[in-house]
This record gives sequence, structure tokens and C-alpha cells, in this order.
Amino acid sequence: MIAHIPRLYVPVITPFAADLSVDTARFVAICRRILEDGADGLAVFGTTSEANSLSTAERMSALDALVDAGIDPARLIPGTGCCALPDTVLLTRHATRIGCKGVLMLPPFYYKPLSDDAVFASYAAVIDAVPDMGLYLYHIPQMSGVALSIPMIGRLTDAFPGTVRGLKDSSGKWDNTAEVIAAFPQIETFSASESLLPSNVAAGGAGCISASANVNVSGIMRLIRALGTQEEATALAQVSAVRAACEGLPLIPGIKAIVALRMNDPGYARTRPPLLPLTPDQKVAAERAVALCPPKENAA
Amino acid sequence: MIAHIPRLYVPVITPFAADLSVDTARFVAICRRILEDGADGLAVFGTTSEANSLSTAERMSALDALVDAGIDPARLIPGTGCCALPDTVLLTRHATRIGCKGVLMLPPFYYKPLSDDAVFASYAAVIDAVPDMGLYLYHIPQMSGVALSIPMIGRLTDAFPGTVRGLKDSSGKWDNTAEVIAAFPQIETFSASESLLPSNVAAGGAGCISASANVNVSGIMRLIRALGTQEEATALAQVSAVRAACEGLPLIPGIKAIVALRMNDPGYARTRPPLLPLTPDQKVAAERAVALCPPKENAA
Repeated sequence: MIAHIPRLYVPVITPFAADLSVDTARFVAICRRILEDGADGLAVFGTTSEANSLSTAERMSALDALVDAGIDPARLIPGTGCCALPDTVLLTRHATRIGCKGVLMLPPFYYKPLSDDAVFASYAAVIDAVPDMGLYLYHIPQMSGVALSIPMIGRLTDAFPGTVRGLKDSSGKWDNTAEVIAAFPQIETFSASESLLPSNVAAGGAGCISASANVNVSGIMRLIRALGTQEEATALAQVSAVRAACEGLPLIPGIKAIVALRMNDPGYARTRPPLLPLTPDQKVAAERAVALCPPKENAA
Repeated sequence: MIAHIPRLYVPVITPFAADLSVDTARFVAICRRILEDGADGLAVFGTTSEANSLSTAERMSALDALVDAGIDPARLIPGTGCCALPDTVLLTRHATRIGCKGVLMLPPFYYKPLSDDAVFASYAAVIDAVPDMGLYLYHIPQMSGVALSIPMIGRLTDAFPGTVRGLKDSSGKWDNTAEVIAAFPQIETFSASESLLPSNVAAGGAGCISASANVNVSGIMRLIRALGTQEEATALAQVSAVRAACEGLPLIPGIKAIVALRMNDPGYARTRPPLLPLTPDQKVAAERAVALCPPKENAA
């Protein structure tokens, strides 16, 4: 088993301008802020990023903007998995060409249920088209409707051993994550929730790719440093409180609202349909949640 | 209540070349064949068409090819609903500009569950961008994960009375279709299955948009002509037998295989991942299914 240094990747929100176009300036600003706060890297264009609410052109343009702004592509694992194979190939080829560490790839998520053969064939087709990519599998069956089974993952790691580099388990089911880590020690397995970091790291996992990291990088990095020390329980309690506050709201609009409050810029709060902005009552709850986040990050 | 003349629209399969690019020549050929066989129109780029496995550029190019080949756009209701609002707007604007009768629009289908407010806002945003479209709502919750509720449909028909023209109910739940027809007599409500045509038409519905129509246009048109006559039971038995044969296979690869046999051209059978071609055993079943289809259509 490879010993991993626990890492935090952040599925950064995608800010929108008043006309709901991608707000590249705010996107660059929040990405820089998250890296300055200590995150290891950015898993842009995940579920929290409203990635599937963006066109492929918007995704490539926003990714280019990050690199043009001086962010090291080796710290980027953009999401590239779409319903349509040519879209997934386009985004994966682009991310690979500009030097991204890897891509975090949903399976095609319109047709369901899909057999293991179908999921394997879908990933294999993208790998055939972009053989030099670094592939991180994205397991989020409650949203995609398509689970990545242990046997299917095993077929992929057997067939493409240098290509399959990791997996993000957003199922929330720790037993599944533990099974993936045990079965595939050669890949980096991330949990979605920082609350699972102690279990993830103790089992040999790679760390977390957490939505609530958008508002709590320094808290999660403190937890990572505290793992196995007397500080662990306190650090875990802080990140769990922030996460619970986020999960008490509609998750993505809630996180965007908290980012807006922390950045002191309401422009960060905008969402694209189908996601809706918070109600007035929910905004009050978001204001309370801000108080749980580390003060260090509050100072812009 | 408006009396509708029952109509058949066909969600035409999308043929692929050996390299899995869209095979425009075969697409034009099968669309022409279906219209020659008597269908009222083509609901291209539906679920059966693997529409969500195509890029937006592929969808627009293939639609243009139909019109360039002389097919009347007034007989076309292409699917245009994507996860990303700009993609849906792009496809809807294109279809509207070239004169399509309307568009059959999925709700955005990545995030789930979605509230009625979220679904309403998603459709309203597209209508705001393309106010001159003709909107047919596409209810297929088992695939999209997003149901179109009666209250949500009511809000849309109230807010956009000239724009919302119809609905396709692919839920397979007749009670839901009956409720939609009763609540919204001013729109055209289609069933997905031709087996429900007698119920649909008796209740005031508009007809069907059926996957198995890809291989049984003349049988379904015969049923439509036979409704209320002594021939109805015989015609219904024939279409139900064909439908059952299709449903006994993986539906979309099965229909493509049957089309290939009927067109005497194996090129029609190719699918794009995540859909897989039939197994040898399934191919034998597809050959048996061809015998159930009307001989008239067998003569190319």
C-alpha cells in the first residue's frame, strides 16, 4: 500500500455575472483565495461547481483563464464527464493538453440503469481517445444515477493501470470508500466529506474533495495537520460544524451565499437554473454559518 | 376541449458511422422512410435517438441535414433539453429559427431532486431567451430523475399560454397522462406507448411519440385509422406484439438492430457508449421480432 500525504482538493463554485454568464474574474479570484488559504489543489467543475450547467466552451474558457492567471495546472483536476462521449473527450483532451494533474470524470449520466459493461465501455472509449490523461473516477450515484461498482473499477484499473489514478467517493457511504481503498491501494481515493478525513486517512485514503472546503480551507487543513494528535477532535468538531451548517441549506446555493458573505461580494451568490438562490430565511441561516468559519479566512 | 386528430411522431434513432460519428446519410434515409411510411412527423433527438450522447454541434448539424434534404421543418419536433441552460437555449433557438413545429424539452437532469420552483425557473429561462418557440414538455422521470408535476405544468401553461403547446408522457403511468389531459385540454398530450393510443385518444389526447414506431409506422397508423372500429382490437394486438418484442431487448440497441434488419443495412445497428450493441442471443431475438412488423415496410 502506498502511504499518501492527505490532501485537500476544492470543487470550487463557479461564479456568474448578472446575466448568468460565467464570471471569469470572480472565478480566478476565488480559486486564488482557496490556494492561498492552503488547499493542495482545485477540483473545478464538479457538482458544487454547477459544471453540468455550463457548456463545454464555457468550461474550457474558464479553465484557460485560471492557467492564464498563473495557477499551476498541475494543481488542477477539472471535471470533464458529460453525457455525450464527444463532449467528454473534448474536455478531457483540453485539460490534458494544458497540463492538468488529471480529470475527475463522471460516467455518462442520462441513461440508467447502466450495466458494469456499459460504464466500463464508456470510460474505455474516452481513454482510447485521450490515452495520456490522468483519470480520477467520480462516484456520486445519488446525482448521476450511475454507480461505479468495485468489479467495474477493478476492470478499469486492470486494463488501464497507468491511467486510472484515483476516485472520489461522494456516495457518503463510508463502507464503500473503505472497500475501494482496500481493493485498489494503488490509486488515490478521496472522500467527499472532510468529516470522513480521519477514517479515510487511517485506511490509506488520499484525503478529501469537499464542497464545504469552499468556505473552510484553513479549518480542513488544520484537521489534516492535527490527524493523530490531541488537536484532532477539536479540529474535527470545527469542520463538522461548518459542514452541518452548509448541509442545513440547499447545499450549493448555500455555499455560494456563504462565499459571498466571506468575500463581502454578493456577486458570488448567483446560481444558474435549475439551482435557485436562497430564500430570505435561508440567507439568515447562511449569515449564522459564516460565524463558524475560521476568522483567518474572513480577512480578505 | 380541443378535438385532436390522433398523430404519430417518431423519435428517430440516430445512426452512427463506423467511427461513431453521426451518420448523416443514414439519418436522412431513415427519416425519409418513416415519413413515407405515413408518420405525421419526427421527434428527432429524443431518448431513443441517443440525443444526450450527441454534442450540441452534432445535433444542429444533423437537424440541418434533414431540412437540407427537403424534409419540412414543420413536421419536426427535435429534442433540445440539456443539463446546461446555454446548450438548451442554443438548440432551441436553432430549431425555432429553421422553422421546426416545436421542441420537445427535457428539464435539466443532473441535479436531483428538483423542486417545482426549480423546474419552472429552468423552463422559464429558456422561454425568456427564445420566446417564439413552441414548447413540448418531456416527462420521463425514470430517466431524467426530474418529474414534471401537474402544478408545475399549470404554472407554465398559465405563464406562457401561447408557448406551451404539448407534453410527452414517457412515465408509462396512464393515470398521470389522464390527469394531464384532463387538466390541460388546451395542449397536445402524447403517450409514449402506442399501446396506450386508444386510451389517449378517447381521453382527448394527441396521439403518441413512440420508440417502437421506428420499426412499425404502418402498424401504428393502421391502429390510428382503426380506433373506434371493429379493426381496433386486431391493430392493437399487432402494435402491442411489436412493442413487447422491442421491450424484450435492451430497448434502444434492440430497435436499432431491428431497423438494421428491416433496412437490410447493419450500419443502422451501431450505438454510442454508454449503450452497447446486442449480444448474439439478443440478435436472434431481434430477427424474430422483425417477423412481427408489417411486411409493407419490409419492402425497401
